[in-house]
Amino acid sequence: MRVVHTVKEVREFLDSRKNIGLVPTMGALHAGHEKLIQVARSECELVAVSIFVNPLQFGPNEDYGRYPQALSQDLEMCERNRVDLVFIPSVKDMYPQPQFTMVEVGRLDVHLCGKFRPGHFQGVATVVLKLLNIVQPHRAFFGEKDMQQLAIIRRSVLDLNVPVTIVGVPTVREADGLALSSRNRYLNPEERKAAPELYRALKEARSRIQGGERDVAKIREATLQVLQSSPLIRVEYFEIVDTEELQPVHEITDQVRIAAAIWIGNTRLIDNVY
Amino acid sequence: MRVVHTVKEVREFLDSRKNIGLVPTMGALHAGHEKLIQVARSECELVAVSIFVNPLQFGPNEDYGRYPQALSQDLEMCERNRVDLVFIPSVKDMYPQPQFTMVEVGRLDVHLCGKFRPGHFQGVATVVLKLLNIVQPHRAFFGEKDMQQLAIIRRSVLDLNVPVTIVGVPTVREADGLALSSRNRYLNPEERKAAPELYRALKEARSRIQGGERDVAKIREATLQVLQSSPLIRVEYFEIVDTEELQPVHEITDQVRIAAAIWIGNTRLIDNVY
Repeated sequence: MRVVHTVKEVREFLDSRKNIGLVPTMGALHAGHEKLIQVARSECELVAVSIFVNPLQFGPNEDYGRYPQALSQDLEMCERNRVDLVFIPSVKDMYPQPQFTMVEVGRLDVHLCGKFRPGHFQGVATVVLKLLNIVQPHRAFFGEKDMQQLAIIRRSVLDLNVPVTIVGVPTVREADGLALSSRNRYLNPEERKAAPELYRALKEARSRIQGGERDVAKIREATLQVLQSSPLIRVEYFEIVDTEELQPVHEITDQVRIAAAIWIGNTRLIDNVY
Repeated sequence: MRVVHTVKEVREFLDSRKNIGLVPTMGALHAGHEKLIQVARSECELVAVSIFVNPLQFGPNEDYGRYPQALSQDLEMCERNRVDLVFIPSVKDMYPQPQFTMVEVGRLDVHLCGKFRPGHFQGVATVVLKLLNIVQPHRAFFGEKDMQQLAIIRRSVLDLNVPVTIVGVPTVREADGLALSSRNRYLNPEERKAAPELYRALKEARSRIQGGERDVAKIREATLQVLQSSPLIRVEYFEIVDTEELQPVHEITDQVRIAAAIWIGNTRLIDNVY
């Protein structure tokens, strides 16, 4: 396994004749990332993992400064999973000049997290395009937990003719249903106990739909009741959206994605189900 | 020479081991384009020319619907200059789904043409990035007449780590100084006679700077006098900007670019000098 820190070294290392897989991460790797790496390992000859906490995708009041870091464990996990290249750039190497150019994915970033994190998905789409251009992978792997991110990246790659296949990998969960996230480590024991309510509420919504309920207002009301039963939880949004353009639906007539974001103390958690 | 019409055919044709040059055009090729092709031919093993009138970069009241076309002459010129691949996509092949993703190059598009053509440079940056991703050239060639376009493309490629070298090629002019442009064919004989005043005015401004004048307000006044001496000319803008970020300067302390846009009848002409 080779660990490099500059764009130049990445380009020197890569052999463009090989089938390259890229797993872009912000580090603090957990079993969800490990799953991405394993899927990449099974599908590609050369697996690259990037670790970069991207300042561009954090708002001024968000947790950029305190985002968890665990570099030695991250490298161990990469080594254990036979990663070929780990790319850990500095902010200066990723943004050597002021970043004037931004990738904007209109329509898909209007609702859900996009509504509450202005500029976030422009930052994500921009850094992902940079990483795709640096590594030039054949396949890139993203978790389905960040469903809006995955949809936006899929669309930007399609719209911009980027020669890469985007692979979505199912969310990995704890035994009690909590979706794995680097931010889970912010939770104190009491908050951690309340956190699985998010997934429970989403499953509740799904079972109502499977039971025949088509009225989104009614489903929302019942789901919010589940979430509000815990005094630690503050709901940021709960939405039922179509799977392609992520627009809220009022009546369920087709496949939908059910998504929510909650705050527990100072920690923001998101999750979604089909 | 191979002529193709779909993204798929382009990808099949290209041999990624060769040094590929791309000349993106909107067709109606003139000696300025020919110069781009010749420079590409001298620097690259495989030369591709794209001909695509990009709807995304035209405003609602602009000349998209009547933009000049001259396909058979264009193909002759390409053949004569030993172009390997001509890519003439349909709008449907370039934009098979609604284009939600746009590339935005803030700061560089605020002044000059960007001020008078809102959305134009997003459309340009977006289609150029698409073409670069489709053809994956090592070098791409653009005329210096479209100085703001060239600066924006250079910056977007740098900011997004696109693995391509952008080559600027000096403006080709008629004997009387008029910069070649596909839009020159809109001019009637009387308008055509007035058109070289644009270059004459820019040269006037340059010679004042070379003569030691540092006050932009004074240079502007003298230049506008030259332009306003012709009753057919309406000035859209005249600016002196720095060469990198294209911000207007008030006093000349460094290398600058002098740029203007004028209307003659219903035809908009631009030009610039160092």
